[in-house]
Amino acid sequence: MQQYTERQFLSALQRFRQARPLVHCLTNEVVQEVTANVLLAAGASPAMVVAREEASFFARIASALLVNIGTPYAARLRVMHDCVDAANERKKPWVLDPVAAGGIPWRDDVIRAFCQKGPTVIRGNASRVLALSGCESNGSGVDSHDSSEQAIEPAKALALRYQTVVHVTGATDYITDGKRVIAVSGGDPMATLVVGTGCSLSALVAAYCATRSTPLLGAAAAAYHAKRAADYAKTQAKGPGSFHNAYLDGLYLEGR
Amino acid sequence: MQQYTERQFLSALQRFRQARPLVHCLTNEVVQEVTANVLLAAGASPAMVVAREEASFFARIASALLVNIGTPYAARLRVMHDCVDAANERKKPWVLDPVAAGGIPWRDDVIRAFCQKGPTVIRGNASRVLALSGCESNGSGVDSHDSSEQAIEPAKALALRYQTVVHVTGATDYITDGKRVIAVSGGDPMATLVVGTGCSLSALVAAYCATRSTPLLGAAAAAYHAKRAADYAKTQAKGPGSFHNAYLDGLYLEGR
Amino acid sequence: MQQYTERQFLSALQRFRQARPLVHCLTNEVVQEVTANVLLAAGASPAMVVAREEASFFARIASALLVNIGTPYAARLRVMHDCVDAANERKKPWVLDPVAAGGIPWRDDVIRAFCQKGPTVIRGNASRVLALSGCESNGSGVDSHDSSEQAIEPAKALALRYQTVVHVTGATDYITDGKRVIAVSGGDPMATLVVGTGCSLSALVAAYCATRSTPLLGAAAAAYHAKRAADYAKTQAKGPGSFHNAYLDGLYLEGR
Repeated sequence: MQQYTERQFLSALQRFRQARPLVHCLTNEVVQEVTANVLLAAGASPAMVVAREEASFFARIASALLVNIGTPYAARLRVMHDCVDAANERKKPWVLDPVAAGGIPWRDDVIRAFCQKGPTVIRGNASRVLALSGCESNGSGVDSHDSSEQAIEPAKALALRYQTVVHVTGATDYITDGKRVIAVSGGDPMATLVVGTGCSLSALVAAYCATRSTPLLGAAAAAYHAKRAADYAKTQAKGPGSFHNAYLDGLYLEGR
Repeated sequence: MQQYTERQFLSALQRFRQARPLVHCLTNEVVQEVTANVLLAAGASPAMVVAREEASFFARIASALLVNIGTPYAARLRVMHDCVDAANERKKPWVLDPVAAGGIPWRDDVIRAFCQKGPTVIRGNASRVLALSGCESNGSGVDSHDSSEQAIEPAKALALRYQTVVHVTGATDYITDGKRVIAVSGGDPMATLVVGTGCSLSALVAAYCATRSTPLLGAAAAAYHAKRAADYAKTQAKGPGSFHNAYLDGLYLEGR
Repeated sequence: MQQYTERQFLSALQRFRQARPLVHCLTNEVVQEVTANVLLAAGASPAMVVAREEASFFARIASALLVNIGTPYAARLRVMHDCVDAANERKKPWVLDPVAAGGIPWRDDVIRAFCQKGPTVIRGNASRVLALSGCESNGSGVDSHDSSEQAIEPAKALALRYQTVVHVTGATDYITDGKRVIAVSGGDPMATLVVGTGCSLSALVAAYCATRSTPLLGAAAAAYHAKRAADYAKTQAKGPGSFHNAYLDGLYLEGR
C-alpha cells in the first residue's frame, strides 16, 4: 500500500491545468450541473453531447469519456455503448460510475455489460464495489453503509477480473489495479450530503486519466484534488449548502 | 385551525433523522439537483430511478414516492403511473406535486388522473390548489398570485373530493384532510426566487410521511422544517443565491 | 459603435421588473436549474414546458421563448420547432443559443435550420459566432478561444444574412443588427467557470426582448444586467462556487 503524496499531486495538477482536458460526460439527470461545475472549477472542460447522431462523433474528439449509470434508460444506454466503442477504438480513457450497483437486478445487468467493455477506471463507493464483486453489502439506494477498508480486497479482485483500475471512495480512497494499492486520505463526510460529489469525482478521474497519467495515478490525483478541496470546504462551511460552494472554490484554489 | 408546535416538530424530526427515509423522486427536469440536496441536507436519502425496467421495482423498496408534474412527457408519465401503482400496492406514501395546474388543459388532465389514484398528500401553492378545486385563480406559469388563506376552503373541498391531505404553501402553510386544518407559519418570500423550494418541499413531505406520521402531521413537520430553514436563511442571505445555500445549511442545522 | 449607458439600463430594468416576463425555456439538460434561478433572481419568471402535447400551446401564452441547442435530440428538437413556429405566429420574441456551433456537422445543420426561422436574437460567444459565419474559429466544445472583437464583423454579416440581431459575448459584449453595434463592457472571466452563465444570459435576453424593447436594446440591457451582477460577484467570490451565488445575488440586487 502506497500513500499518494503532495509532490506527486502538484506535478499532476500542473499537467492537468495545462492540458485542460475536454471530458465528454454521459451522466445521470440529477448531477449534470454539479459535474460540469466541478470540471470547470478544477480546470477541465465539460461537454454533454447526448444525441445518437453526434455523441460517438464527439467521443472521438473529446479527451476522455464518463459513463455514469445513475438514471439509465434505453435510448441513453445505446448512446453510452456507442461512445464507449468510439473511445475504445481511439484508445481514449473512459470511466464507469456504477451508481446504486447491487440494488436492482436490471441495473446490475446494465452495469456488468459496461464492465465487460474494458473501462479505464471503475469508481464507486464501498457498497458499490462490494456489490460488483459479488460480496454482501449494506448499501441501499446510492449511499454507502460500508467502509472503504472493507472493499480493498474485493476491489483488487474486481480489478483483476476486468483488467481495470478500481477506485473505492470513502474516508480514505483506495485505488488498485489488482496488485498495487494507492491510498488517498482526507476529505470530509459532509461531502456525502451534497449530491454529485461522487459522480463528479468520476468525471475528474476521467479528466486526469487524459493527461499523460497511468489510470492508477490519474485516479489518485483526482482523489487527492477532491479531498484537498473538501478539506478547504470543511473550514468554510456551516452545512451542506455552503460546503457545496466552498468545495468548488477549493477545487479552483488548489495549487494557486 | 391548529398551529403546529415546535414540540411536535422536534419529536418528528428525531424520528425522521433516525429513519433516514429513502425517497424515490420522479420529478421535473429543472429541480432534480436541488431536490436531492434538500433531502440530503434535511436527513433523508434521495433516489431518482426513472427507467420503466426498474422504476416500479424500486418504488416497492423505497420508503416513499414523489410524483412531480413539472415537465411531464409520455414516457415519464407511464413510469410515474407504474410507480404510483406499486406504491399503492405496498401501501407506501406518495405525494403529488401538481406544478402549474390550471394553465394548460392537457396538463390538467394529466394531473387529474393522478389525483384519482389516491395520493397521500397533494402539495401546491395557492394558485395550484385553487385551479385544482375548479376555482378562479390568478396564477400564470408556476408562480402563485393568490394568498394561501384564499385557498383554505378550496383545499378542504379538494381533500374531501379525493380523500387525501392537501398542503397549501404560502406565507402561512395550511394542511388539511378536509376536516382539520393545521397552520405552519414563518419562512421568507425570498424562497420563491430560488427554483425548486416548492418542488423539494413536496419531496420532504413524502419523506416525513414515511416516518410513522399521519399524512397530516407528516406534511406539517416538513413545512415546519422548511420554514425554520428559510428563517435561518433570511438571516444569512443577501439575495437568492446566498439564500439557496443558507436554506440547505438551515435544513441541516435544524435540531442540531 | 455605441456604448450602452447606465441611464438606458435603469429605465429598461424598471420596465423589466414591472413586466415580470414569463420565459418559456427549451434549454439543455445541464443548465436548467441555473437558467431558472437567473431569471428569478433578475426579476423574470421561468417555465420549462417540454411535452409536444402542451409546449406550443404554452409558447403562445409565454412572453418570450428560449431555444438552446446544448443537448439536442430528435424528440426535443421537434418540440423546439413547434414552439418557434408558435412564437413566430404570435410575434413573440425568441432567442437562439447555438451552443458548440462549429464542432459537429450534424449539430451545425440543426442550428442552421433554426437560424432560418428568424430568431429575434442569436446569442453566443465569439467562437460560436465565428463558426456560424463560416469563419475559422479556435473553439472546441463549448468554450470560446477567440476574442469578441474578432467576431464583430462576422456578427454583422450574420445579422444581415438572417435579418436578426447577433449578440456576441466576451470581455466586452457586442450586439448588432448588421448596421448598428452596441458595446457592453465589464464582467469577470470567473463567470466562464460557472456552467450556464452564457446559456442563462440567452434566457435573460429573451426576457428583456419581451418588455417593449427593440431586440438590439433588449439584448444590451440583458448584457448590462449580467455584467453588473458579475462585477458584484467579483467583489464577493473566492472561486467559482461562491461566484455562482454572488452572481445570482447581484442580479437580484441590481437597481435595488
